[in-house]
Formats: sequence, structure tokens, C-alpha cells
Amino acid sequence: MDAGLAIAAERQSQVDAVLARLFSLARKRAEPLGAAYVELWNRIEDSTTGGKRFRPRMVFAAYEALGGTDSEAAAYVGAAFELLHTALCLHDDVIDRDFVRRGIPNVAGAFRDRAAAAGMSADAAEHHGVSAAVIAGDLALFNAYRLIDRSGVGDSTRARLLEVMDEALFASAAGELIDIDFTLQADGPHVDDILSMERLKTAVYSFEGPLQAGAILAGASDETVATLGDFGREIGIAYQVVDDVLGVFGTEAETGKTTLGDLREGKRTVLIAYAATAPGWDGYAELFGDPALTDDDAARLRMHLIESGARTFAEGLARYYANRALARLVEPHIPAALRLELHPVADAVLGRVK
Amino acid sequence: MDAGLAIAAERQSQVDAVLARLFSLARKRAEPLGAAYVELWNRIEDSTTGGKRFRPRMVFAAYEALGGTDSEAAAYVGAAFELLHTALCLHDDVIDRDFVRRGIPNVAGAFRDRAAAAGMSADAAEHHGVSAAVIAGDLALFNAYRLIDRSGVGDSTRARLLEVMDEALFASAAGELIDIDFTLQADGPHVDDILSMERLKTAVYSFEGPLQAGAILAGASDETVATLGDFGREIGIAYQVVDDVLGVFGTEAETGKTTLGDLREGKRTVLIAYAATAPGWDGYAELFGDPALTDDDAARLRMHLIESGARTFAEGLARYYANRALARLVEPHIPAALRLELHPVADAVLGRVK
Repeated sequence: MDAGLAIAAERQSQVDAVLARLFSLARKRAEPLGAAYVELWNRIEDSTTGGKRFRPRMVFAAYEALGGTDSEAAAYVGAAFELLHTALCLHDDVIDRDFVRRGIPNVAGAFRDRAAAAGMSADAAEHHGVSAAVIAGDLALFNAYRLIDRSGVGDSTRARLLEVMDEALFASAAGELIDIDFTLQADGPHVDDILSMERLKTAVYSFEGPLQAGAILAGASDETVATLGDFGREIGIAYQVVDDVLGVFGTEAETGKTTLGDLREGKRTVLIAYAATAPGWDGYAELFGDPALTDDDAARLRMHLIESGARTFAEGLARYYANRALARLVEPHIPAALRLELHPVADAVLGRVK
Repeated sequence: MDAGLAIAAERQSQVDAVLARLFSLARKRAEPLGAAYVELWNRIEDSTTGGKRFRPRMVFAAYEALGGTDSEAAAYVGAAFELLHTALCLHDDVIDRDFVRRGIPNVAGAFRDRAAAAGMSADAAEHHGVSAAVIAGDLALFNAYRLIDRSGVGDSTRARLLEVMDEALFASAAGELIDIDFTLQADGPHVDDILSMERLKTAVYSFEGPLQAGAILAGASDETVATLGDFGREIGIAYQVVDDVLGVFGTEAETGKTTLGDLREGKRTVLIAYAATAPGWDGYAELFGDPALTDDDAARLRMHLIESGARTFAEGLARYYANRALARLVEPHIPAALRLELHPVADAVLGRVK
């Protein structure tokens, strides 16, 4: 079902090879500076694996459909966005106080456990882990930039790619700040606020940026680059909304995380923003965000999200944005090959909630 | 006394202008994304002011003494290292749980206070502030890199400057990790461990990197660049040792921070590593690192650091490294102008403890 979002095996190995070289070199440089530093680099490398590589997939989709043939350069650019994703996840986990990602200890978790094993108190060990994750995110962020620089492209292309990555980080930082500010609001955020936050925090660097980067690398016209940005924005929002639905209604096999997590942490999503304004929320508001939420109460909450129409609304919203994305692809300056390449992406995003 | 470390007024305004342009542009871009984001950028800008700008000073010292005349390019490179310093300080404060720098709230402190004023609990407000500082550091780090890229230099010079900055961040991350790992050791770190940590964490990006960048920008020979790296390493270590002495024995006017701070937080310095192995430490070990240390006890601790010979040892060590630095300047490939420029730097470092 996720086929439209999956990267071709050959492309994936090219991206993997770029990252493997980077980490191999970093490890070699880290060795004289101590075992802990080598361990940190290993953990950063672990953080780059296990994902769907759909940021590189977006780079390649735009690049190849627009006639690009230097797959090595595209692999560097794809790897750069993947590493930017790693950096942002590492620091997002610091902000969310998460010590686990995809079911295994993240950098913070690994260094927390290491410190605890060395006799540190639980509190101090947690902070030790968080500190290591702050450092790790800085290294990943810096090297994301370096991979663009090392892609071997000419001056003006490089400058434009760096603009795209700059915009991606600029947006993500704004989205993260809006997200942490939600808790300062007296009443919960509206649907619009959530869509805007999710677009900034994740969709720009995951869809808009990689698609535009692929197009720039292929030497596409400004018009095409702009349309790909529009497509990426719409499909990226659709993807986030679907992700929020799956965070509550998906299976752990699909999402790689417990479907209690979002409800327990009180994650503000479109589902909740809708339900909170629909009748009957009063009976459920106190369950939402309860860190000790039971399976039974979670089931009741899920049932209410269905009965209040929140789930149907969210799925409809995702479909709306995916359709808007598809509408961009019929613009006359979009070559047929690109349309053929991106249609399955939109289908796959929607397919995840079918 | 700090004259050798101070940047010329004209150069300072060039560096300030580069940073002012960057922040003015960022603010303009941030405006549609919310008042909090504009505020974050303002606070990052505040974090870049008030320092001695001696990283730009090092860039200009090497650049101009080696015949460089494009002071605009040097201002960009100097500003890049200044912004790297800002990024590392922001994240170091997260790691040290500091909410104040140079006597005023840092980014974390400002956003903590803002959240508390909006009604957040003290704990949650602190974490809110820390989260904002994580985001702020990422933005500063990324833009440090961008300033190198925007300096307008040619491809091969840019590549070499980026290597120098990469090395600076790589070293600083290693030093930060070694620093937080000190607390895992059963017995305190040796003098050598501390010198190595301080060199990596601070000296590389503050002295070695900026001096080498200035030389590269001036088109200096590899030999000269390497010697400047050596000079920077030695003088950087001397500077850190002096800084540690001033952290305990300086005046607040000199250091901009309370001289109780290092003793209360139990900062591992050359002074302490020496005193901890000298006779009589047992009576003082429990005072060191006591967050509630009184002025009287601090005075007793200071007296012991003098009587045990720790202060004399540290000052001697600083002098030793400064002399080693000066010895590099007499190498035949170092032009007289560069020697004249850097001699006062070494004098100024030592002058701080006289």
C-alpha cells in the first residue's frame, strides 16, 4: 500500500552508500577523541536507518521524471534531506522528552542507559542522555548541509539547493515553536492552526523541499519548481493528517509506535481539534492527555472520535488536500513523466487510511 | 589589558553589519510565522552581542597580516565563527541547565519567563525555555554555515573554509561529550584530560579555526596555515586555563559572571585537578560543587587553591602554553607583520592574570 512512497532498491542503496561513507569517515575521525564519541556517531547512524527514505524518494521522483541523469548527485541531495530529518527528530525528541523512537532507544535513551549503568542517578542519567542528543543533533544538522555542498553540483545550483534547505529548516523551527506554544493557549488550537503547524514543522522539509531540490537539480524551470512546491505542500499536509489518524487508529505494525502514545501525551491533532468543538467532548477531555490512560479508556476515546465525526472529518480533509495536490499535476508545464511519477505518491498517502 | 584581544572598531562594525543584515532578513521572513518566532530571532540576535568578538578578531588578524584586502569577505567569515560560538553557547546552556548568560536571561531564560508569565508551572516553563533554546541553537548553527557560503569566495577557498568550520564543530562536540562524561568517572579527571577537553570544546573553534580561516582566505601557504593552527591551539589552551583561574579569582567586572559560579557548580578545571591531588584537599572536597556554597566558604576554598599551589601551577601552565604559542611565530615562513599582529594576542591572554 505504501509502494508509491517507497524508494526503488537501487536508489536506496545509493543514498545508503552516501550516508555510510559519511559515518565511516566520521567514526575514523572520532576514534582518537574517545570511545564515547565513536559511540555517539554510531548512534547517529542508527538514527538514520529504519525510516522509509521518502525524502530521498521525493528528490529522485522529481529529478528523474524531469530528465536528471546524475543519480549520484541526487543521492547526495536525498541523503542531505534524510540527515536533516534525523537532526530534527533528535532535537524533537529532546523537546518531547522521548527516549525511544520506533521502539528502540534513541540517542538520548542509549546515553541515558549508559550513564545509569555507570552509576548515575536516574535524573542525572536522563539529562546526560538528553545532552548527548543535543550534541548529536548538531552534528547531524551540520552534516546535512555539508552533503549538499559535497554533491558536486555547480555554484548556482548549489546556492539554490542551499536556499531550499535553509527554507526547510527555517519552516521547521517555526513549526516546532508554534507546537510548543500550543500548550500556552487557554483553549486548544483550531484545525487551521494545527494544519499550519504540521506543514511548517514537517511537510516543508519532507515534501516541498525534497521535491523542489530534485527539480532544481534537474535544471527545471522556475514554474515547475514552484508547482512542485505547491504539490509538496498539499500532499505533505495530507500525509500529516493521515499520520495523525494512524497515530490513534493505525496498528503498531503500520506506524511502528504504540497507538496509545498520541492519546497519552495529549498530542494536538486535527482529530482532537475537531472533537473538542463537537458535542459530548466534556466526558472525554480528561482522558485525553492522561499519561496513565488504560487500553479500555483509549478504546472509549477512539469510539468517541469516530462517533463525533472527527475521524471521518480528518480522513475527508486528507482526501481534500491530496486532491488539491493532484490538481497541481495537470498544469500544462508539468511533463507527463512527472505526473506518472507523483500520482502514485498521492494515492499511497490516501491508501494508508483506506 | 585586553587590547590585544579587542577587535578594531571599524572591523567590529563590519562584522556587526553582516550579523545585523542576517537577523533583519530573518525577522522579516519570520513575521508571517508568528510573533513568538520573531521574538526567538530577536533573542538569538541578543545572544550574539556583548562578547569580545575575538573570533572575528582572529580571522582579521591572520587575514590582514597575510596581505588580505577584501575586508568584507573576512567580515562574513568572522561573523560565521561568531554565530557558531552563539550556537554552541545556546546548546551548552541547555546542557548546563543555565538560564542566564553574562548576567541577563539567555534564550532559555527569556522563553521560560514568557511561559511562566502565561501561566505555565515552573517545571513546564523551564522545559519550554530549554526547548526554545534547542531550536534557537539549530538556527544559529545552520546560519553560521550559510555565512561562510555567502562570503562570496571562490569554490576551492570555500571548500577549505567549510573544512575548517567542520573541524571546529567536530572538535567542539567531542569536547562537550568528554566534559559531560567527566561526571561518570570515579575519580576526577587529570590535568591533561581537562586541557584536552577544553582545547576541543572551545579553543579549536575560538582560536585555531578562525586563525586558519583568515590565513586560507588570504591565500596563505599550507605551511603558514598549519603553523597558525599550532599557534591557535597553544594560545587557545592558555586562554582557557586563564579563564578558569579568572572564574575563581577574577572580579565580576572582568569576567561578567559571579566568581562563585564555577565553585558552586563543581566545574572541573586545571585548578581543581591540581588541588585534588595535593595534600589537604580532603577538608575542601565537600565544599567544592556545593550549590549553596557561602561567600565565606568560597573564600576558604580560594585560599586553599592558593596555598596548595594550584593557582601558581595554573598560571604557570598558562604561561607555558603562551610561550609555546609565541615560539611558533618565530618560524621562518611567518611574516613579520603576522608576528607583530599576534604577539599582543599572547601578551593579552597572559595579561589577564597579571
